[in-house]
Amino acid sequence: MNDATRHLIDIDRLSDDEIETLINRACALASGADPGHLDASVANLFFEPSTRTRVSFELAAARVGMQPINIEMAQASTTKGESLEDTVATLAAMGIGCLVLRHAEIGLHARLAAALPAGVHLVNAGEGSRAHPSQALLDAATLRARGIEPAGLKLAVVGDVRHSRVAASGLRLWPRLGVEELRLAGPADLLPAGQPSPGVIHCSTLEEAVRDADVVMMLRIQHERMDRSGWPDPAAYHADWGLKSEHLDVAAANCVVMHPGPINRGVEIAAEVADGDRSLILEQVRMGVFMRMAIFEWLLKR
Amino acid sequence: MNDATRHLIDIDRLSDDEIETLINRACALASGADPGHLDASVANLFFEPSTRTRVSFELAAARVGMQPINIEMAQASTTKGESLEDTVATLAAMGIGCLVLRHAEIGLHARLAAALPAGVHLVNAGEGSRAHPSQALLDAATLRARGIEPAGLKLAVVGDVRHSRVAASGLRLWPRLGVEELRLAGPADLLPAGQPSPGVIHCSTLEEAVRDADVVMMLRIQHERMDRSGWPDPAAYHADWGLKSEHLDVAAANCVVMHPGPINRGVEIAAEVADGDRSLILEQVRMGVFMRMAIFEWLLKR
Amino acid sequence: MNDATRHLIDIDRLSDDEIETLINRACALASGADPGHLDASVANLFFEPSTRTRVSFELAAARVGMQPINIEMAQASTTKGESLEDTVATLAAMGIGCLVLRHAEIGLHARLAAALPAGVHLVNAGEGSRAHPSQALLDAATLRARGIEPAGLKLAVVGDVRHSRVAASGLRLWPRLGVEELRLAGPADLLPAGQPSPGVIHCSTLEEAVRDADVVMMLRIQHERMDRSGWPDPAAYHADWGLKSEHLDVAAANCVVMHPGPINRGVEIAAEVADGDRSLILEQVRMGVFMRMAIFEWLLKR
Repeated sequence: MNDATRHLIDIDRLSDDEIETLINRACALASGADPGHLDASVANLFFEPSTRTRVSFELAAARVGMQPINIEMAQASTTKGESLEDTVATLAAMGIGCLVLRHAEIGLHARLAAALPAGVHLVNAGEGSRAHPSQALLDAATLRARGIEPAGLKLAVVGDVRHSRVAASGLRLWPRLGVEELRLAGPADLLPAGQPSPGVIHCSTLEEAVRDADVVMMLRIQHERMDRSGWPDPAAYHADWGLKSEHLDVAAANCVVMHPGPINRGVEIAAEVADGDRSLILEQVRMGVFMRMAIFEWLLKR
Repeated sequence: MNDATRHLIDIDRLSDDEIETLINRACALASGADPGHLDASVANLFFEPSTRTRVSFELAAARVGMQPINIEMAQASTTKGESLEDTVATLAAMGIGCLVLRHAEIGLHARLAAALPAGVHLVNAGEGSRAHPSQALLDAATLRARGIEPAGLKLAVVGDVRHSRVAASGLRLWPRLGVEELRLAGPADLLPAGQPSPGVIHCSTLEEAVRDADVVMMLRIQHERMDRSGWPDPAAYHADWGLKSEHLDVAAANCVVMHPGPINRGVEIAAEVADGDRSLILEQVRMGVFMRMAIFEWLLKR
Repeated sequence: MNDATRHLIDIDRLSDDEIETLINRACALASGADPGHLDASVANLFFEPSTRTRVSFELAAARVGMQPINIEMAQASTTKGESLEDTVATLAAMGIGCLVLRHAEIGLHARLAAALPAGVHLVNAGEGSRAHPSQALLDAATLRARGIEPAGLKLAVVGDVRHSRVAASGLRLWPRLGVEELRLAGPADLLPAGQPSPGVIHCSTLEEAVRDADVVMMLRIQHERMDRSGWPDPAAYHADWGLKSEHLDVAAANCVVMHPGPINRGVEIAAEVADGDRSLILEQVRMGVFMRMAIFEWLLKR
C-alpha cells in the first residue's frame, strides 16, 4: 500500500506510526508550526446536516492553502438520478484532489475510495453509526496537547454508545494507544450488543463508569433514542445519565471531560460541567481544525 | 474599553472619532487606497434570508484577504438543539476571527459579543427592527464620497420607519453627524411611537417631508405591513407614499435619493426616480463593500 | 463590438477566430500551460439546480485566481420581489466582474448582458432549451485534445434533441467547425420540429444514426419526457434508444462516445459503453474546467 493513494477511511486502516504522525502533527500545528501549502481543491460532500464538522474541514483546508468547495447533496445531481459513484468520478475528473464525505451508508466510503483514480483522496467525515475517524483522532490530540497520554488511563464513554460513530471509531483507537480500561456506560439498550472485548467493561450506572476515571467522554443523546429508551423527558434522562458536578468528585483527581458536540445542556451533561474547568469541549473543537489540517497534509504530501 | 476586543454592535457604541475613521476609510478605499491584508476568517451567520448584505460582507472579507465561511442557519446545528451561544463559542474555538450575524432577536448581538473570547469580533448585520449599523455608516460614506456633508442638511426618511432597522441605526447616526432637520414620514401607524426627539420632525405627508430636503431616504415597504395599514394594493400605497419625479421638484435643487434596497419599483419608489440622475441607490451598494472592508480593518487592525 | 465588454451568450455571437482561440486555449491549459491571474470576482447565479456545471465554473474561477461567490437563487432577493435586472445591477455595483447565469427564460441572458455596465461580463451557463455554449465548446475542445478534428466528420446527436440546450448550442457550433454530416436521432416527437437545415440529417433509428459515425453524442433523457413519449419504463427506452456495445460495431473504427452528463446508466446509455474505452465522458468533465478557465481569460483579458 506504500505507493497507493492515501485515504482516511477508519482507524483500523492506519498503522501505529500513521496514528502517531497525525496526532503529533496536529499538536505541532496547534503550537504554531507552519502549515504546508497544498495546491489542491477539496469538495465537502455532506449528505447529513452538519455545521461544525463541515466548517472545521473547510477552515482546515483553507489554512493549508486548499480551495474548499461545498456541495449540498440534498439538491445535487444525485437527485437527478446520477449514482454517487458517478458524482464522485465526475468530481475527480474535474481535478478535485480530496473528497470529504459524510453519508449514512455503512461501507460506502471504502467502496468509493477503492474506485477513485490515483491521486484523489477520500476522507470519512461520518459513516452511519460505524465510523468518524477524524473525531477520534482529534480527541487523542486534545489529550496529548493537554499533556495527558492515554496509555494506562481509565477512560469512560457514556451515553448512546451503540449508535455513536464517534464511540465506534474511539473503540478502535483507544486500545491502540494503550488505554488500560475502556468503560462503556449507558442505558442497557444503548450499549453495544454482545460481550465486551478484552479491556472493555460495560457499566450499568454512570457512577460506576466515572469512579476513578481519568477521562469521561459524554456522547450526544438523540431525542428519538431517548424516547425509545423509556425516559419520559430530558430531565429524567439527565437524572440517570447526565454528567453532573457530583460525579467528578468520585473521578480521578485530574479527570477531564470531553464531548464531541453539539451538546445538550441539561440532558447528557450539566451546564456547570460543560463550562467547568475540567471540560475540554472547546479545546476539542480547536484541535479539530488542526487535526484536519494534519490529515490533509498526510493525505497529500508524500 | 481601549484594550478590549472591538465589535460593531450599533452606532451608539461608536465614538465620534471611530465614526469619522470608518467613513473616511471607506471613501479612501473607494478612491483606490490599498486595502490591508487581514489574516483571519469570517463566518457569515444569517438567520434571515439575505443576498445583498451577505454577498457584500463576503466580497469585502475576500478583498481584505480574509477567508469567508457561509453558514446557512436554517439547517445548522441550532436545529439539533444547540444554543446559539454554543454555536458561536464553537466557531470562536475553531479560530474564526470575525462573526457577521443577522438575527431577529433584539439584544442578542450585544449579549453574544460580551461572551466571546478576546480577539473574536462580532459585526451586527441586522438585528430585528433595532439596528443595522453598517447600512447607516455606508449611507454616510455614500454622501461624503459624493461631496455631500450631512452637517446642516435636511434629511427625510420615508416609509415604514417604525419597523426599519436601517432607519433605527440612521436615527442614531444622523444627529451625530450634524444633520439639521431629520424628517420622518410615513403612514401614522408606521411612524415611531411617542413624541419625536429634538431635531426630529414627524411629517404626515410625503410632500411635507421632501420639501426643501437635501436627502430623501426611501425605505422598503413590506407587503404584510402595507396590508395591515389599510392600503388595498401596491398602487394605492404608491399613490400616497411612493416617491415620484414630481416630489423632486419641490426638494432642494441638488437633492439626492437613497434606498437601502432591494427596491420595490412602483411601490415605495417610481422606477424613473430609482433610475434617475438624483438616485444614489447603486452608489450605496458600491460603497457598502468599501464600508464593510473598512469595518473589518477597524475591527482587526490595532 | 471590438471595444465593448465581452459576454458569452451563445455560439452564434462568437467569430470563427474567437471559437478557435477558446478551444486552443482550453487545450493548452489542459496540457499544462500556466493560467493567468485574473483579479476579479465571479458570482454563480443558478436558478436551476446544478452540481457539475456550478462546481466546474467555481473550480475554473479559483484556478485563474478569481473569487467565486455562490448565490442560491431559490432563497435570494428575487423572493423579496426584486427583479432579476435589479439583482444583477446590484451585483455589478458591488464590483462583481463576472456573472455566470443559469435560467430557464429564453432571451434573458442577452437582455441582462445588454443592461450591464461596461466591464461586467455575463456567461450563459444554461438558457432554457436554447443554449449552453460552454458545453458545446468544451465538447469541441475534448475532441481536439484527443487529436480528433471535427472537419469532415460524421457526428450523431441522439436522444431528446428538441429540448436539449446542449444540442441546440452544438447545432450552431458543429457546422462552423466543418462537420460533414450532423445526424440527429431520437423519438420523432423529440426531434426538432420542421425540416432539417442543409448538412443536417434526421434519423429515425439509433442504428441509422451511428452507422459509420465518428462521434456519437448521447443526450440525457428526462424521465418526464420519456413518459410523455409513450415508453412505459427506462428499460423500454433503453431497448430502442439506449447506446449499447453492438452499436459501436457498426460505427467508424475510431468512433468516440460523448455525453454531457449526468448519465442515466441503462437508460440512454449502457454502463459498459459509458465506462468503455470509446467513452470520452470523464474527459469532457475534465476539459470542462479548462474551457471555463479559457472563457474567463477571454472575457477579462484584453
